[in-house]
Amino acid sequence: MKIHRFTPTHYFNTIGSHEPVLHIAPGDTVITTTVDAHGQDAADRTVTAGPNPMTGPFYIEGAEPGDTLVVRIERLIPNRATGWGRPGLAHNVVDPTDVAALPSRQELAIWRIDPVQGRVYLQEPMGKLGAFSLPLQPMIGCFGVAPADGQAISTATSGEYGGNMDYNGYGEGVTAYFPVFQPGALFHLGDGHAWQGDGEISGTGVETSFEMQFSVDLRKGQPSGWPRGENATHIFTAGNARPLDQAVQHATSEMLRWLQADYGFSAQEANLLLGYAVEYSVGNMFDPAYTMICKIAKRWLPRN
Amino acid sequence: MKIHRFTPTHYFNTIGSHEPVLHIAPGDTVITTTVDAHGQDAADRTVTAGPNPMTGPFYIEGAEPGDTLVVRIERLIPNRATGWGRPGLAHNVVDPTDVAALPSRQELAIWRIDPVQGRVYLQEPMGKLGAFSLPLQPMIGCFGVAPADGQAISTATSGEYGGNMDYNGYGEGVTAYFPVFQPGALFHLGDGHAWQGDGEISGTGVETSFEMQFSVDLRKGQPSGWPRGENATHIFTAGNARPLDQAVQHATSEMLRWLQADYGFSAQEANLLLGYAVEYSVGNMFDPAYTMICKIAKRWLPRN
Amino acid sequence: MKIHRFTPTHYFNTIGSHEPVLHIAPGDTVITTTVDAHGQDAADRTVTAGPNPMTGPFYIEGAEPGDTLVVRIERLIPNRATGWGRPGLAHNVVDPTDVAALPSRQELAIWRIDPVQGRVYLQEPMGKLGAFSLPLQPMIGCFGVAPADGQAISTATSGEYGGNMDYNGYGEGVTAYFPVFQPGALFHLGDGHAWQGDGEISGTGVETSFEMQFSVDLRKGQPSGWPRGENATHIFTAGNARPLDQAVQHATSEMLRWLQADYGFSAQEANLLLGYAVEYSVGNMFDPAYTMICKIAKRWLPRN
Amino acid sequence: MKIHRFTPTHYFNTIGSHEPVLHIAPGDTVITTTVDAHGQDAADRTVTAGPNPMTGPFYIEGAEPGDTLVVRIERLIPNRATGWGRPGLAHNVVDPTDVAALPSRQELAIWRIDPVQGRVYLQEPMGKLGAFSLPLQPMIGCFGVAPADGQAISTATSGEYGGNMDYNGYGEGVTAYFPVFQPGALFHLGDGHAWQGDGEISGTGVETSFEMQFSVDLRKGQPSGWPRGENATHIFTAGNARPLDQAVQHATSEMLRWLQADYGFSAQEANLLLGYAVEYSVGNMFDPAYTMICKIAKRWLPRN
Repeated sequence: MKIHRFTPTHYFNTIGSHEPVLHIAPGDTVITTTVDAHGQDAADRTVTAGPNPMTGPFYIEGAEPGDTLVVRIERLIPNRATGWGRPGLAHNVVDPTDVAALPSRQELAIWRIDPVQGRVYLQEPMGKLGAFSLPLQPMIGCFGVAPADGQAISTATSGEYGGNMDYNGYGEGVTAYFPVFQPGALFHLGDGHAWQGDGEISGTGVETSFEMQFSVDLRKGQPSGWPRGENATHIFTAGNARPLDQAVQHATSEMLRWLQADYGFSAQEANLLLGYAVEYSVGNMFDPAYTMICKIAKRWLPRN
Repeated sequence: MKIHRFTPTHYFNTIGSHEPVLHIAPGDTVITTTVDAHGQDAADRTVTAGPNPMTGPFYIEGAEPGDTLVVRIERLIPNRATGWGRPGLAHNVVDPTDVAALPSRQELAIWRIDPVQGRVYLQEPMGKLGAFSLPLQPMIGCFGVAPADGQAISTATSGEYGGNMDYNGYGEGVTAYFPVFQPGALFHLGDGHAWQGDGEISGTGVETSFEMQFSVDLRKGQPSGWPRGENATHIFTAGNARPLDQAVQHATSEMLRWLQADYGFSAQEANLLLGYAVEYSVGNMFDPAYTMICKIAKRWLPRN
Repeated sequence: MKIHRFTPTHYFNTIGSHEPVLHIAPGDTVITTTVDAHGQDAADRTVTAGPNPMTGPFYIEGAEPGDTLVVRIERLIPNRATGWGRPGLAHNVVDPTDVAALPSRQELAIWRIDPVQGRVYLQEPMGKLGAFSLPLQPMIGCFGVAPADGQAISTATSGEYGGNMDYNGYGEGVTAYFPVFQPGALFHLGDGHAWQGDGEISGTGVETSFEMQFSVDLRKGQPSGWPRGENATHIFTAGNARPLDQAVQHATSEMLRWLQADYGFSAQEANLLLGYAVEYSVGNMFDPAYTMICKIAKRWLPRN
Repeated sequence: MKIHRFTPTHYFNTIGSHEPVLHIAPGDTVITTTVDAHGQDAADRTVTAGPNPMTGPFYIEGAEPGDTLVVRIERLIPNRATGWGRPGLAHNVVDPTDVAALPSRQELAIWRIDPVQGRVYLQEPMGKLGAFSLPLQPMIGCFGVAPADGQAISTATSGEYGGNMDYNGYGEGVTAYFPVFQPGALFHLGDGHAWQGDGEISGTGVETSFEMQFSVDLRKGQPSGWPRGENATHIFTAGNARPLDQAVQHATSEMLRWLQADYGFSAQEANLLLGYAVEYSVGNMFDPAYTMICKIAKRWLPRN
């Protein structure tokens, strides 16, 4: 149950079977820092190149293929005063005939992060929006474990191993689960957002650097197929693919498996429960793989 | 501002330019009944064939192409004590390799509707789920106006004109908006659900017959492109298409137009607002056309 | 075995259960005319409005739901000297980031139809393309039968009943098959193209008016699920949906059924044959529903 | 202009920035061997694990990001007498409701390869298909160059860098082009098929081991975005993505760029040419990324 303070000296733009930066044990906690999606750190210096540079990977002792890695997101603290994002929407989320009328994708909007007020503010007031502000609600955009078959996959996308899911539900207090494909799991994290709308439809949240604290655990011999999560009110699964229809299939199938394996439901019961009580949220709709979240409220689940 | 009590004598399985059953004026209220998706009425008699028989159409005086029809959903009261649905999930919402393991689509689950408790109960307790219950939360599954070009389209699907969107946000207190394509708009409604999960992924909610009360109004000369809605906290748009990615495009483009036309935002401002504050919900993921809902919380909008 | 000469006096922009214009018997031949997609006739007069006005419907005596209508496309003769189309590609067939660079969709290209040379020529030479010409290869863009449930569906799209499939394989000498949904089948046809590329990716072929000759027959009690066809070398099925992936599923499933029902293959044999000998072509990739064609060469089929 | 005979001693299941096995120069020819998709060699020994083990990578001297690698497929000779495949179709190419009726995916069909007859024969006659045979028509299922950003991507899928495209048009006499992302390009190849139907809809062709001969060249400073190809009659581009609609967009956009950059067409001319003369073929419809091929016949292109 150690607490590790880890300061990264290099970053990865892929999630893969890279040389681990630190070995940790189940139960351990790590306090570390992440740079923003463009590689800028707490001092606004560009210390590495994008996209989405990862801190890590962390080798979790004892993790083997067929296990599930448990990651508790304990604290997500922006460690500088500004974040950036794009004001113009991504070209793929509007009707093709409306693309030509979208604002340029080159521009940036700068946000001021105010931890005292607990809000993020547009640095330059913008017309009718004025000094627009949103809640400070930090989340992890991109995290996951080394994928199967020795792959190293760009942090611009996602898959069974996690990756750039950009789901705004991966915030403080959430427990994330990842299937383990490689010995040690090799956990990577980064791409923190001080706030993000559903779908990350501008391809950005409020992109900034962070101090992140997480602890890890293992569910030995308990496999999973896709990333999962749990918060105060829900359990959820993530499917990553295009089109969204396929992401829905992955997430729904994974939830069916979870309900049967861990909650003791028969196939019939899991089907009925899901058919009537399911909730869906969208993660990113910007990357090569989109993300769909399938959720069940804990109030419908048996008390274990 | 009349109140019309209308008892249907026949129903339609398409939404189209059918002979209107009643002429009403903007400001008027209608109290009527609807049968369930299989055509069963308050007395459990099958009075017409499915799918989704429609009450109406109602001719709204003065409605012309280019206007927007406003429908306030005032009351949705199940008028019998049971509803039905399918326990097995639809084949299209799980991974293709998992289809063979799904329960039969032939079976029905019967729900008891208890308006006093405000809940719906599985009539036959089912294994670990027991006497499972959910809130009584009525909604309209299928409603809309006669589509363009004299089309008559099956109530099994949806489009710009509305239709079988099966969005559980179309409940009491919600205002729905439809583009007007035909003189009189020709408003149809039916397919009430006492409760429905996100996505209607079993192809059913708690399907039952209803007494429905709504009032209508017109936004003359104010066109819209897709169904819209408004509740206490949000405005929203609906896109209907497959894949979900295209439904997202329709709904997002429609919201961009709405924000600019009615709320005075520039394209740049509407893009930024949407990119950062958008929320998405799913309507049906069962019909030929899926439904995606694009929402903006009213707290981000200027007070008009 | 009558030959009917039919001159249309009105047209439909939907395919539906409209009043038939002529009753014909299995074995009969019809010689008629069609206007182009904008409603222009042989004399270049606009006689009706678009999209894709249909000649018909023709009532086939004895056709009942559960039968399959057989339509032999015998002659397709453009009856004027020019056709039109769009030089700019549709917005949905290029990467969203490339949409803004596409030429305007407002412009038209005019083609000169030369039946003696058997070619179509760009009327105005265009830069490096010069006096570009293509073979005269007539086809039917939109045809089909009244759909199920009393629907009337825009000729801008397609479904189980046929419709605007824009497959350039529906040319002279081809036999088309349609499932019958309504008594009399109610066959519609129009939207002839003197030439069309794969996918109709500009939303147009060489659009012109035609004299069309076809004969009809019935396969009594032999149902089908989607449009089919047969030419000198292949049998084929058409699936109409978005995304193309779903059109592939419809067309492939329909071919599996056909191989088993009519050619005596077991499921195992039909699977192997299809898995190894299938060919696919694309119909339209422009309309709300895309079209995918699944083909098997007759040389792989048993001689019946 | 050397000829290299290279015998592989190890294989890769990802396409990535692996240590090159051989350095070659533009103009050089390589004669080497490949194992089948399960890792079986000419002697039917399993020498490595699947999926799709790659021979290589070959480092092409002088290749740099921004160049295009030219690969001439000179000879593809199966080097054993049998190949295997699956008789049952993939679950994703039929309607979801038809999945449960598909034959098992566990079974294999064995094919006898007869280079004298130039055909492949089902080893065990199968019912009505009898001793079914198809032409011997060898092709490369999976080949490409190391992708961007240091990625290593499973040979089960494909992308801008090539990969498991399973397009039956990549046969002898074809020239393939790949964008160069890494110094030396790092060319991998394998997964030969003695025959394959369109779409690889059983997930297999006639899978066997090969002797393969290819030569390489470079188009210095001439970038490309997606794999391209050229045969006796056509030039073509490959888009790899899901859904097929997106693969169409990638391939069509790439062809538009090619026509303008290399053939001197204006945007308007390239659009018109493509809109009227395009042909599409499908590569795989089985992998995580599907493949769509966009083709233009050389007879429509200017003689350079």
